[in-house]
Amino acid sequence: MHPDEFRRHAHVLVDWMADYLRDVGSLPVTPGVAPGDIRRQVPEEPPLDPEPFERLFEDFRRVVLPGMTHWNHPGWFAYFPGNNSAPSILGEMLTATLGAQCMSWVTSPAATELEQVMMDWLRQMMGLPPGFVGVIQDTASTATLVALLSARERATGGRAGAAGLAAAGAEAPLAVYASREAHSSIDKAVKLAGYGLDLLRHIETDDAFALRPEALARALEADRAAGIRPACVVATVGTTSSTAIDPLRPIAEQCRRAGAWLHVDAAYAGAAAIVPELRPLFDGIEAADSLVFNPHKWLLTNFDCSAYFVRDPAALLATFQATPEYLRTAYDADVVNFRDWGIQLGRRFRALKLWFVIRSYGVEGLRAIIRRHVALARELAAWVAEDPAFELVAPVRFGLVCFRWRPAGRTEEEIDALNARLLMEVNATRERYLTHTRLGGRYVIRLVVGQRATEREHVQRAWEAVRLAVGRLG
Amino acid sequence: MHPDEFRRHAHVLVDWMADYLRDVGSLPVTPGVAPGDIRRQVPEEPPLDPEPFERLFEDFRRVVLPGMTHWNHPGWFAYFPGNNSAPSILGEMLTATLGAQCMSWVTSPAATELEQVMMDWLRQMMGLPPGFVGVIQDTASTATLVALLSARERATGGRAGAAGLAAAGAEAPLAVYASREAHSSIDKAVKLAGYGLDLLRHIETDDAFALRPEALARALEADRAAGIRPACVVATVGTTSSTAIDPLRPIAEQCRRAGAWLHVDAAYAGAAAIVPELRPLFDGIEAADSLVFNPHKWLLTNFDCSAYFVRDPAALLATFQATPEYLRTAYDADVVNFRDWGIQLGRRFRALKLWFVIRSYGVEGLRAIIRRHVALARELAAWVAEDPAFELVAPVRFGLVCFRWRPAGRTEEEIDALNARLLMEVNATRERYLTHTRLGGRYVIRLVVGQRATEREHVQRAWEAVRLAVGRLG
Repeated sequence: MHPDEFRRHAHVLVDWMADYLRDVGSLPVTPGVAPGDIRRQVPEEPPLDPEPFERLFEDFRRVVLPGMTHWNHPGWFAYFPGNNSAPSILGEMLTATLGAQCMSWVTSPAATELEQVMMDWLRQMMGLPPGFVGVIQDTASTATLVALLSARERATGGRAGAAGLAAAGAEAPLAVYASREAHSSIDKAVKLAGYGLDLLRHIETDDAFALRPEALARALEADRAAGIRPACVVATVGTTSSTAIDPLRPIAEQCRRAGAWLHVDAAYAGAAAIVPELRPLFDGIEAADSLVFNPHKWLLTNFDCSAYFVRDPAALLATFQATPEYLRTAYDADVVNFRDWGIQLGRRFRALKLWFVIRSYGVEGLRAIIRRHVALARELAAWVAEDPAFELVAPVRFGLVCFRWRPAGRTEEEIDALNARLLMEVNATRERYLTHTRLGGRYVIRLVVGQRATEREHVQRAWEAVRLAVGRLG
Repeated sequence: MHPDEFRRHAHVLVDWMADYLRDVGSLPVTPGVAPGDIRRQVPEEPPLDPEPFERLFEDFRRVVLPGMTHWNHPGWFAYFPGNNSAPSILGEMLTATLGAQCMSWVTSPAATELEQVMMDWLRQMMGLPPGFVGVIQDTASTATLVALLSARERATGGRAGAAGLAAAGAEAPLAVYASREAHSSIDKAVKLAGYGLDLLRHIETDDAFALRPEALARALEADRAAGIRPACVVATVGTTSSTAIDPLRPIAEQCRRAGAWLHVDAAYAGAAAIVPELRPLFDGIEAADSLVFNPHKWLLTNFDCSAYFVRDPAALLATFQATPEYLRTAYDADVVNFRDWGIQLGRRFRALKLWFVIRSYGVEGLRAIIRRHVALARELAAWVAEDPAFELVAPVRFGLVCFRWRPAGRTEEEIDALNARLLMEVNATRERYLTHTRLGGRYVIRLVVGQRATEREHVQRAWEAVRLAVGRLG
């Protein structure tokens, strides 16, 4: 495709993109398709000859678009948000055009140095002390695996990577600790890093679904007594099911005493640390050895962009550095090569969109959006609390409201089933999208206010839809 | 930023992007910056208030662009290529705008199903049998780690993930095998997966830098005799240093006998399998348990897009599946949830750009580009072979030519140093970018023909530049 053809097609796309950003709220937020519906519209074999771009774009609108779930719909109340924004899209357009692979400083100095500065901007925005340095990872799952691998190497003095875990763990197996409410990516990382799921201690939680420090203390003590080494504790600020906040300060103190690595998973909630009045919710975070939060969730930056901070970059390098001859450069002693800060050798230029987002909104602009979402969540929580047919199932700390319909005279199991039906009913109009979880074994509806374009009217209408559905079901 | 402001700025960007694609060849391929030059042009603190996009874009051109290495420059002969293309950029524009996070079928059915079909298109294009199924990973490093983790779980019947490697490896440690010329990502993955670098057997290579099957046989036998279990053999088609081709057929037979997983790393060269007359170079590939190749290298698709194929998806799922309550859906029994096919939970919609690239060029169009690059590399190799001042250091199989200046009457060490100076001299004009490696311990210059826009004239001028530099240095 000649650059002038690209120019012509790209201008057409830009008008579609601007219309999409303007009109996404008028589309159904979820697609009305069944498994296989998209697949059967795409030829089974690749074309031998070129096709005109007009036909591709037509197929995009005809085949792909009706099969998309619209994460940027103002009626998005599902999972956690995955925001994009106009400045972030503009950044991605330039990143795609440059097509740089930013594994080393030398393979794009601007990408490396802008990433260093952007991570320091984020550090300051979150109120982290200067000792923390950051790197962009793709996702929190990867960042958590990176943390657990670093902790494994620290606990074994590098023997796990060198001699293998079979040898390094022979004298004393390594254990990992996280609350029962911690994210499944921690289970997955414990498995992948070779600790073994049997050595992940799921620590019990309190009434607000936060880790009980005294239960952690007992678990650490029991393991030490059994000759098992505590390698890492993963604490969460803002759990996925209920945005519970593990008490970082006492956990950090226990980590210090046990010599365990403290990794803080603030994948969703971390963005809220940029709001001064919400920062007390992160009390103790400065004691973390590592910390992950996702600007691609609540900080208006396109997926993927996960911010990973560490206090000791030497521990990262000891785990991930590899310098084959063909990658050696004259600059290696003077620069950061981010390929050595994680699993992947190849890296996209992701700092650019972050630069555009932070400067376009300004820190105050980003704070205003998070404040608005948190205020709306609290308002919704008040409506739920006032309605005797419902119960709030967890404290509202950020943008998530966990609630449950409680019709009288039913067993808990019946109520579970009714709430599952209620959720289906609410989602059936495809004007909004809510999801569920289980808390204390019970089926709970989650409504997260966090989409960039979500305003009070959307939250209000969602609550009305819930109450109307209850009227029909009850 | 209002959608109409986005529209206005995005149109301006598109004109810049089209100009960049047209004119990138007139820019210096490498930036003339020293460490810290970019960083000191970016404010140390984030702005509190919004800035107009015009200023951001101006800073992009003033600060970022002069600090970029231009991977899409026709004078790119470094590392391996990292191509983009106009249709791929158009795809990335739409992916960024949709901003979908495609972890599960339900979070964007079209993304999942298009990925299934695109991976099957690639499978057919490479001539792989129908038994292989594929998934898009971000990089070959990740894919190789995924393979080594799957092999670990298969070798231990799932005990490594469940009970931990300390327990699972206690009876018999697990070993991994790859040639001395295998990529550093294999060393890294062996370390991260917990095998331990000491249990990676670097198998000796022949004169063409390919793994010697008889040496592999000896290593497997020695380990078995010592009570060590062979878990995985990584064979490479197209090594990074010299594009050597490990003999897959005898390696596969040994894997079969030893019960070891066979992972094939064709990160760069895999794209050449779409050319029928080059397919014999991949003889035996159908016996692989897993296979990675990067469309983001030589198949005109923006980084990142790494194609990972497996014969037994159940082994992948056994290693990576995790389904917390909040991710359960009514469709799970009937669909593929690609989050369970790798490390990351979150996933970008990367199949879209692949769809655009394959349809825009057609399979024949893509073949024509690879054929052109391979023909140019062979022509360059002939020029090198004819010049008595140079030697070809490795056979030319794909687009890479490895050569070495051989002035008479010098020691090998002196020749190493002279070739390093020669490389600096050739790169100094910043009209082209070549890199180096070591083969058989000796410093070697690598020139890879693989950039989309690279034509005969660019290769010719590069060779002239090498000869002129030799004239100056000699």
